[in-house]
Amino acid sequence: MPSQTLPVDLADIQRPVRDALDRVPDELRRIIVSDFSLIAEVNEHLLRMKGKFFRPTLVLLAAEATGGIEPEDVTLAAVVELIHLATLVHDDSVDHSVLRRGEPTINALFSHQTAVIMGDYLYSRAIIELVGFGDPVPLQVMSRVTHEMTIGEMRELQAYDSLEYSEADYDTLIQCKTASLMSGACDIGARRAGDAFRARLRRYGQLLGMAFQVADDVLDYTASESVTGKPCGLDLREHRITLPLIAAVPRMNPADRARIEGLMADPAPSDELVADVIRVVAAHGGVEAARNRAVELSAQAEQELEGLPATPARDALHGCLSYVIDRRS
Amino acid sequence: MPSQTLPVDLADIQRPVRDALDRVPDELRRIIVSDFSLIAEVNEHLLRMKGKFFRPTLVLLAAEATGGIEPEDVTLAAVVELIHLATLVHDDSVDHSVLRRGEPTINALFSHQTAVIMGDYLYSRAIIELVGFGDPVPLQVMSRVTHEMTIGEMRELQAYDSLEYSEADYDTLIQCKTASLMSGACDIGARRAGDAFRARLRRYGQLLGMAFQVADDVLDYTASESVTGKPCGLDLREHRITLPLIAAVPRMNPADRARIEGLMADPAPSDELVADVIRVVAAHGGVEAARNRAVELSAQAEQELEGLPATPARDALHGCLSYVIDRRS
Repeated sequence: MPSQTLPVDLADIQRPVRDALDRVPDELRRIIVSDFSLIAEVNEHLLRMKGKFFRPTLVLLAAEATGGIEPEDVTLAAVVELIHLATLVHDDSVDHSVLRRGEPTINALFSHQTAVIMGDYLYSRAIIELVGFGDPVPLQVMSRVTHEMTIGEMRELQAYDSLEYSEADYDTLIQCKTASLMSGACDIGARRAGDAFRARLRRYGQLLGMAFQVADDVLDYTASESVTGKPCGLDLREHRITLPLIAAVPRMNPADRARIEGLMADPAPSDELVADVIRVVAAHGGVEAARNRAVELSAQAEQELEGLPATPARDALHGCLSYVIDRRS
Repeated sequence: MPSQTLPVDLADIQRPVRDALDRVPDELRRIIVSDFSLIAEVNEHLLRMKGKFFRPTLVLLAAEATGGIEPEDVTLAAVVELIHLATLVHDDSVDHSVLRRGEPTINALFSHQTAVIMGDYLYSRAIIELVGFGDPVPLQVMSRVTHEMTIGEMRELQAYDSLEYSEADYDTLIQCKTASLMSGACDIGARRAGDAFRARLRRYGQLLGMAFQVADDVLDYTASESVTGKPCGLDLREHRITLPLIAAVPRMNPADRARIEGLMADPAPSDELVADVIRVVAAHGGVEAARNRAVELSAQAEQELEGLPATPARDALHGCLSYVIDRRS
């Protein structure tokens, strides 16, 4: 299984769709352009803080793997990135984050008000683009996806403090919050290829997205600040409950459990307390269990790919799984 | 002209569409229902703080005035109210408002985070409802409208502090912020009646919406707290530039203008200073000029109604104009 062997580079994954992907930033610019100065200024900032374009890559790979890329796929790839951007702008505002992709966030650089309204602006631009799109399928898929993402955001508000937060709660949360958009991206990329291919790629995207989020949550327990650019244990510091902790808690004795509860009761836990709880979670196999879950999700996703014709794009979709579960930042 | 004579009651305006309007709250409930507890809780609060349903009334009157109401019009009326609600939830959050319709706002009762995410939730529910609607027209109209509203919100961020803010800026702002949704409501209500009726009602709604906002901004200079439930001069206190001020400034001598600039430079102007500036604006005819503008917009809107068949619904659309420019709260 490729996901177990060589580390995979983002550039490798993107190679089969490189040309189309390189057209996404201009398409994104076309969609969000505004002659109103304040919006234009925020747009420039957003276009500067380029992400990895992982979700547009999924749209294009799904298209390429199921018959080839058409010019409209570049538009859809840009719309998917735009929806992702809109949610990031609102997330940063809701979380009062000051940095994103190494650049100041919209709420930090402009204002909280500007961030809330710009999120709405970007989202409404995405909807208009989809309403004017020839095929109704992407609008149907993406309106459901954005709806699920808001439910995920809402569910995330409850993922704090309580050791009662279950793995089932966590699964529902990450499906809504992270997997829904990746699943939708793969689905609309494959839209010309018929229901069977669409269903496979939709499930692949769902499993990939869940693995992505689990791996991300594991990183918070394992990565050093020098690699990820954010301090280890940030989730714990904010009392956010994720899979490593959920998996470890049932294996703990009352004394260890009391240490976790102590952290959750502390509004500003010290570095020592956070480091201590990270050790306790790891010692009870929480990190390993979460890692295994990511690998398991990835293996399930690989099965969905087996029904696709053997192409460089299908190999790249395999590569996405390795990339997601092996990444270090 | 009816707008100059008898005061018109909301109940009078709503009489021709009363039965359909009474079905809107249940339809709204059906659309926003959620089995997730936190969303369900916020929904209950939103459904309790019933508004005047002025925008749903416009949808239904436009339908009734151009051929009659069908069951789907009740759905569209609910969607229009839902879009209005979503913007109120975000507005209150952006403005840190604590009261709305006499009830605590979502940001005050739950949290700022909840308000931002709930606004997104409500808006995404409205879009899903329109995507599943048989006729594509309401989705086309409402996606454009919600987009214009976000631009209006963004433009509003600039409507502060500067006496350079022009009447043209103000007109563009109120068209986007207020008139766009009322225009869209009338447009989709008339959607079965053909392009000529739709265009008339779209323009009627646009002019009505502008008159509505001008009258609202005049109230801030004239109404007493006991009537409106909010202190007079709130806009001035927050340095918000509206039509009465814009109209008065060119007529002022340098000393009076300096008093306005003094208020704008004062982060927390005293009650005396606000009352003083209100007097200055009134003395230079700013309030009268703005009132005249509202009456003029209303008269233009009445002309659009002349092309409609004489029905109680058309009379009620006339009544809406009187209601809007004569209201006291």
